[in-house]
Amino acid sequence: MQLSQRITQITGGGSDGWDVFYKARRMIAEGIDVTELTIGEHDIRTDPTILTAMDASARGGHTGYAMVPGTQEMRKAVATRIQERTGVPTTYENILITPGGQSALFAAHVAACSPGDTALYIDPYYATYPGTIRGVGAVPVAIQTEASNAFQPRAKDIAAAAVNGAASLLVNSPNNPTGTVYNAETMDGIASVCRENDLWLISDEVYDTQVWDGSHITPRALPDMAERTLVVGSMSKSHAMTGSRIGWIAGPAEAINHLINLATHTTYGVPGYIQDAAVHAFAQGTDLEDEISAPFRRRRTIARDILAKQNTVGLIPAQGAMYLMLDIRATGLSGEEFANSLLDTHHIATMPGESFGTSAAGHIRVAMTVDDKRFSDALQTLVDHAITLSVQ
Amino acid sequence: MQLSQRITQITGGGSDGWDVFYKARRMIAEGIDVTELTIGEHDIRTDPTILTAMDASARGGHTGYAMVPGTQEMRKAVATRIQERTGVPTTYENILITPGGQSALFAAHVAACSPGDTALYIDPYYATYPGTIRGVGAVPVAIQTEASNAFQPRAKDIAAAAVNGAASLLVNSPNNPTGTVYNAETMDGIASVCRENDLWLISDEVYDTQVWDGSHITPRALPDMAERTLVVGSMSKSHAMTGSRIGWIAGPAEAINHLINLATHTTYGVPGYIQDAAVHAFAQGTDLEDEISAPFRRRRTIARDILAKQNTVGLIPAQGAMYLMLDIRATGLSGEEFANSLLDTHHIATMPGESFGTSAAGHIRVAMTVDDKRFSDALQTLVDHAITLSVQ
Repeated sequence: MQLSQRITQITGGGSDGWDVFYKARRMIAEGIDVTELTIGEHDIRTDPTILTAMDASARGGHTGYAMVPGTQEMRKAVATRIQERTGVPTTYENILITPGGQSALFAAHVAACSPGDTALYIDPYYATYPGTIRGVGAVPVAIQTEASNAFQPRAKDIAAAAVNGAASLLVNSPNNPTGTVYNAETMDGIASVCRENDLWLISDEVYDTQVWDGSHITPRALPDMAERTLVVGSMSKSHAMTGSRIGWIAGPAEAINHLINLATHTTYGVPGYIQDAAVHAFAQGTDLEDEISAPFRRRRTIARDILAKQNTVGLIPAQGAMYLMLDIRATGLSGEEFANSLLDTHHIATMPGESFGTSAAGHIRVAMTVDDKRFSDALQTLVDHAITLSVQ
Repeated sequence: MQLSQRITQITGGGSDGWDVFYKARRMIAEGIDVTELTIGEHDIRTDPTILTAMDASARGGHTGYAMVPGTQEMRKAVATRIQERTGVPTTYENILITPGGQSALFAAHVAACSPGDTALYIDPYYATYPGTIRGVGAVPVAIQTEASNAFQPRAKDIAAAAVNGAASLLVNSPNNPTGTVYNAETMDGIASVCRENDLWLISDEVYDTQVWDGSHITPRALPDMAERTLVVGSMSKSHAMTGSRIGWIAGPAEAINHLINLATHTTYGVPGYIQDAAVHAFAQGTDLEDEISAPFRRRRTIARDILAKQNTVGLIPAQGAMYLMLDIRATGLSGEEFANSLLDTHHIATMPGESFGTSAAGHIRVAMTVDDKRFSDALQTLVDHAITLSVQ
C-alpha cells in the first residue's frame, strides 16, 4: 500500500549522519564500555520531589482528561516564569501546554506554514528541524553560518533566503549543537528580517536555563516581535524531565487559540499529573534549575582547562547549552571520520558535525552528559587522539 | 500576523454543536448541580495498582527519553493483546505507541493522505474526525447513515464516495456516538470497498472492550486487509486511563517505520513510566478490563428497562461503547432543542445528535458516565420530559 508522499519524505533520504550514534549503541549492546557523549540527556534523573508531586496528583484523582490547552495552573506558571525572565507581558492566554518541545516545534510550524510554504532554519541545526518542516508539508531551506563567526547567523544571509516568500524562520539560542548564545546584534538582525519580510519567528529556547557567558535574549522581547514570535519551551533540559514530554508554546493569544484547535485534533492535551508535577518543579524556583544546570557549567570549565593546553582541537566559545562544538580540522579528517576513529580506538562516542547540516563539517559535538571524572578523561583522550592524528 | 490557512480552518467554521456542553459547564461553574451525561469519561479513576506501577517505574529511573516507537515491552504487550484478540499475526514491528488515540488518528491520516487528498469518514462521527482530517491538510468527506439501519454504513454509499479518488476511509466500531457495533455484513462491505478502491482503512477501535451484544470484528482480520489497515487503539476507555494519553497504531511494518519517523518529528515518544504503567495494566488481563466496562453494561440494562416501558423515546440498539443514542423525534424538537430544554428544565446535560454530523439529527447522545442511581433517575426524567413535550 502506498503511503503519503509527505510521510515517506520526512527524513529527506540519504545518510542522516547518525551512523556513529547507532554504532555506539550496538557496541554497548554487545557489552563494550562506551563513553557516550552523544545525546542531550542529563546524567541525573528527574528530582524525587517532582516525582512525589506527580504521584500525589495521580492518586488525588487527576487521571482524567486534562483541559486541552493545559491546566490553568500550568499555563499561569509558564506565563509568570516567562514574564519574570523576559519582561514581556504574558498571561495564560499566551500559553499552550504541549507534550514536549518537539510537539511544540511541529505545532508552531503548522500555525506558521501552509503546505508548500518555505520555512527557514539555521545550519547547523538540531537533528529534527528539517524533518519537522517536511512533516508539516512545508519546504525547509537552511541558512549557512560559519565557525569563524561562532555560528552566529548574519542578517544579510537570512534576508537573502527570505526574499522568495518564506513563511517562517526557526532559530535556537542557546544553540544545539554549537553551544553558541546569540548576541544582541544577531537577535536584532533576526528581528529586523522577520519584520521586513513578514515572517513568523519560531524561537526554540529550551536551553534558556543553560547560559554560561553573557545572557539569553528572547526575540519575543524585541520591538514589535511579540506579535510574530512563537517561543518553544520545555521542562526537559531545565528540570531534567526529558522523558515526561512536557513543553509549551508562548505566542499571541489569537495564534494560541488556533493552536488549541490543532491540539484538540493532534494530541488532546497533556497528562494532568505531569502538569501538576511541572507546576511543583517551577515552584522550587531557580535553585532547582541552577542545581540541574550546574554540572554542565562545571564540565565546560573542565573542558576549557584541558583545551587551553593545546592548539590542535579548537573550541567554539560554548556560551550555553550542554554541548561543546570542537573544531578537529587540524587532524585532516571530517567530523564523521574523526568520530568513527575515536569510537573505534577509544570507545568514546561523539556526534559528527555533519549530523547537523553542512556548516559544522570538520567539527564534532560533545555532550557533557557523563560524570566529571569520566568526562575529563574522555576529553583528554579525545585531544590526545586528535594530536596523534594531526602529526601523522 | 497571518496564520496558515490550514490551522485557521481546522474547526470548519460555524457552530460546532457543543453549545449545550459549554452551557452545562458554565452552569456547573455557577454552582448548579448538573447531571452530566456528555463526554466519554468514566466515573471512576485510574486503578491505584496502575498508579503504583507508574510511580515505581519513575522512581526506578525511567524518567529519561523513552524509545520513540515505544518501549519494547509496551510494543510487545500491545502486539500480543491484538494477536490474542483477533488472530492476526502481530509483532512489535507492527506497533507504534502514541500519546493517546487522538494522536494516533492524526498520525494515521498523515500516513494515508497527502495534502489535498480526500479522506472519507462515517456520519455520525466522533467530534474530532473532520478537524483531524483538515489538520492533516486533507479534505473530509462524510458518508451518511440512517437511524433506521442503526447507523450501520452501507457499502454502496461508501463506494459512491470513493469513486472520485479518496485516499482513506475512517471507521469506528464499537461506535461513538451511536453505540452501534458493525456487523459482519457491514465490515465485509467496508473491506470490499477499500480493496476495490485501493483505500487505506483507518479503524478506530478504542471501544473494543465495551461490547454488549454480538462481538467486535476488526477489519484488519478480513482477507487482504492487514496490509491496508491502520488500527487506532488506546488505554483510555479500556483501562480508565483517559488522562494518561497513551494509545497506539497497529499496521503494516513498513507503514509503522514511516510513522516512527513522523513520531520523531511530532511527539518524540511517550513517557516511559506511563508505558510501564500500561504494561502493568495489560498484565492484569481481562479481569480488569471487564471490571472497568461492567458499569456501562449494567447501566445499558437499566436504560433498556426504562425505555421498554414507553414508546416516545427510541433506542438505537446500543450494542457497545459507553453511550446511548436516543431518538427524540416524537417530541417534534431537534436534538439541540431537546438537549437545551432538558438542561434548562431538569439540569441534565446530554449531547445533541447534531453535534456529530447530520445523520443523527433528532437524536441525543447519552453518556452512561454517572453512578447507577443518578443515571436511572436522569434517564427516567429524560423520558418523562420527552413524553410531556410530545403530548403538548
